[in-house]
Amino acid sequence: MTTVQEKMLSDNLSRDSSGELCLGGVGLSRMAEKYGTPLYLYDEDRIRSRCREYKSAMLDSFGVRSRVLYASKAASFKRIYEIMAEEGMGIDVVSMGEIYTAKKAGFPLSEAYFHSNNKTDADIEYAIGEGVGYFVVDNSEELYAISDIATRLGKRQKILLRLTPGIDPHTYAQVNTGMVDSKFGSAIETGQAKEITALALSLDGIELMGFHCHIGSMVFDEGVYIDSARVMLDFVAEMSRELGYLASEIDLGGGFGVRYIEEHPTLDIGGVIARISEFMTEYADELGIPLPIVAMEPGRSIVADAGVTVYTVGTVKRIPGYKSYVSVDGGMTDNPRYALYGSPYTILPVASPVGEDFELCSVVGRCCESGDILQEGVRMPRGIRRGELIACLVTGAYNYSMASNYNRIPRPPVVMLSGGVDSLAVRREMPDDVSALDV
Amino acid sequence: MTTVQEKMLSDNLSRDSSGELCLGGVGLSRMAEKYGTPLYLYDEDRIRSRCREYKSAMLDSFGVRSRVLYASKAASFKRIYEIMAEEGMGIDVVSMGEIYTAKKAGFPLSEAYFHSNNKTDADIEYAIGEGVGYFVVDNSEELYAISDIATRLGKRQKILLRLTPGIDPHTYAQVNTGMVDSKFGSAIETGQAKEITALALSLDGIELMGFHCHIGSMVFDEGVYIDSARVMLDFVAEMSRELGYLASEIDLGGGFGVRYIEEHPTLDIGGVIARISEFMTEYADELGIPLPIVAMEPGRSIVADAGVTVYTVGTVKRIPGYKSYVSVDGGMTDNPRYALYGSPYTILPVASPVGEDFELCSVVGRCCESGDILQEGVRMPRGIRRGELIACLVTGAYNYSMASNYNRIPRPPVVMLSGGVDSLAVRREMPDDVSALDV
Repeated sequence: MTTVQEKMLSDNLSRDSSGELCLGGVGLSRMAEKYGTPLYLYDEDRIRSRCREYKSAMLDSFGVRSRVLYASKAASFKRIYEIMAEEGMGIDVVSMGEIYTAKKAGFPLSEAYFHSNNKTDADIEYAIGEGVGYFVVDNSEELYAISDIATRLGKRQKILLRLTPGIDPHTYAQVNTGMVDSKFGSAIETGQAKEITALALSLDGIELMGFHCHIGSMVFDEGVYIDSARVMLDFVAEMSRELGYLASEIDLGGGFGVRYIEEHPTLDIGGVIARISEFMTEYADELGIPLPIVAMEPGRSIVADAGVTVYTVGTVKRIPGYKSYVSVDGGMTDNPRYALYGSPYTILPVASPVGEDFELCSVVGRCCESGDILQEGVRMPRGIRRGELIACLVTGAYNYSMASNYNRIPRPPVVMLSGGVDSLAVRREMPDDVSALDV
Repeated sequence: MTTVQEKMLSDNLSRDSSGELCLGGVGLSRMAEKYGTPLYLYDEDRIRSRCREYKSAMLDSFGVRSRVLYASKAASFKRIYEIMAEEGMGIDVVSMGEIYTAKKAGFPLSEAYFHSNNKTDADIEYAIGEGVGYFVVDNSEELYAISDIATRLGKRQKILLRLTPGIDPHTYAQVNTGMVDSKFGSAIETGQAKEITALALSLDGIELMGFHCHIGSMVFDEGVYIDSARVMLDFVAEMSRELGYLASEIDLGGGFGVRYIEEHPTLDIGGVIARISEFMTEYADELGIPLPIVAMEPGRSIVADAGVTVYTVGTVKRIPGYKSYVSVDGGMTDNPRYALYGSPYTILPVASPVGEDFELCSVVGRCCESGDILQEGVRMPRGIRRGELIACLVTGAYNYSMASNYNRIPRPPVVMLSGGVDSLAVRREMPDDVSALDV
């Protein structure tokens, strides 16, 4: 009988005839032997197919001028940007470090959108100098700084303004509440969005292309996007009437959901985007404005389920009358999401499926910290012991990118699998790397 | 009038005649100008005086054979281990990375205690090879592995066994509950502590020195230490009766509290240790056993209030009807403790004190993540704006050591102040460092 955990097996995650877990057809134990553990593995083919799925859905629904930007904070390293360049994706970057890495990968920075609620003057000068295509401007201080620096450099910088449409991502409704109480963007409700639009139109060195918003994360249907699109189109119409400014682009942000555990739904990318498009086309028509270019920014949903982390079990502690603890050779240092948010993950033994004879375990990390837990209530084969391999599924987003050296634990390598062939994308950190900045 | 926040000023944190915040007598703005922001600053003299305070308290109370081990996961970099070596402290290390760094600093590894709930065979071989003085052994799998490896290397490894005494750190009482349900150690209550003691005594290559426990953190009085010392001494007496083994050392772990905000108490190190000693001396006498050597492992309380993080304000966002957001050039990447635990911190403007004319702010970071908050409800001078410096106090523990490169944001440098002189201990990470492992 198949246990709940095993139901997470999918087209790119399978068990071979011996029962061993494979990613993209490659057995995990061979990868663990070759690269050691802990190990981040990515199915590169899956990443590429997700990019194509988004591009094709946007093309079908919004036409050739639509844009899909990979929100690279989900997983940021050189190889990812190379893949995005090859797939013809745009990218969303949030720091000098991400821009630097994208550049190193040869990504055309004219297709990069620079986010962040707090860009320093140094960031702005660097990004303009490197030819970053768009700034997503969060606030008026940033706008003045971009204007000054662009003018000094003799450039005119394309920007979008990040707005806060006041949508509750849980109820998908526009609410006059704390939803405008955010560190990001300028609120439409308070009049600040209109003020910053007027300011952007008045400043030298600035070319206002349109507006950006982002509502929530782990969204599986079109409701929240339609509600925010309505507010954004209303605002476009209002700016057209009141300031005579017609936005040419609307960026609806990201937030598409990912199936981490069996209970989570599966996202229908094409369907959701088609329904957003249907609404926007009709509503723009109703408002009497041309539909702007539409951009979206999936991050997590492009890379998450392409990734798996492989660990070696160290200690198994069975406390009579309580539960068992399975300690692995990684933990919150390579995946802090349970510690931060209590995020659910599916953990499977590599060698063979979890059957009926299981023990309930907390899978914990090796940090000297009681909160260093990867997941609780995990079914592990009874008798699991030191030296066996286990895999945490759907770790492609916000795992490597959020990793730390807490306890001076080095970060695992990143290995990509493509057509059954493995290649190193980020090498394993070593103790001398961790201590390299020490004077 | 002095606001609550300003009451956190202390002997090593003051304002000069112009009102500027100083650490160890050094003005923060000069340091920010010299090293840039964000910047971790440490008052090295304060770290040294805390070491001496603990050493002298332990010497007075427990005699010359007592031990103070700095729990280096609180702040681990080369300079810290140099200071600990100079101060004659022992250290507690939790990984190969910490051992590597301590060795690089010239710390005598015979005075190091190697913790961790999950040491790999590679860790064990490395630590024995480097001559780490003591292993704090968490479980039987580790014990077997140490025995095998030490025997193969022709060594006899000194160890303590980590036990779980079943004390609730909140009520300071021994409870037959989930307090033995921990990823760390072997529970006394379940009989597993006795089993592992017998095992340790039977294995080659192992020299059992005694027992270790650790209960809770942010403890400000002796209650929890006395309760755990009682259980540990009972266990020592039991092992003496039942196995004829008399432990020569008891390590009561760390957990001493730190004053992060005005409401927190101040720890009386000497008083607390004297009262623990008084109890242990009497109780050992009552049990008819000699008092073992006593070790303690302060970490946080040695480095926390020696540290301050200096930030530059980027954006100040005032949302009418709601609150203000002050964004700084760091955040959860250099201090993830609010994101992880909602930890309280005191944040002050550098240039001059917060007076009566303040605005209530959320001080937030620069990450593209809504949970990237340093602190909420902070009083900032009304009109605070881009370019001004602010300081987060008491950031010496678990800030640098838990820092990440999320959003590819480089980690700040660490600068030590001693006798009014600054010196770099960890250089600033740069974008090419962050991307150095990318293939």
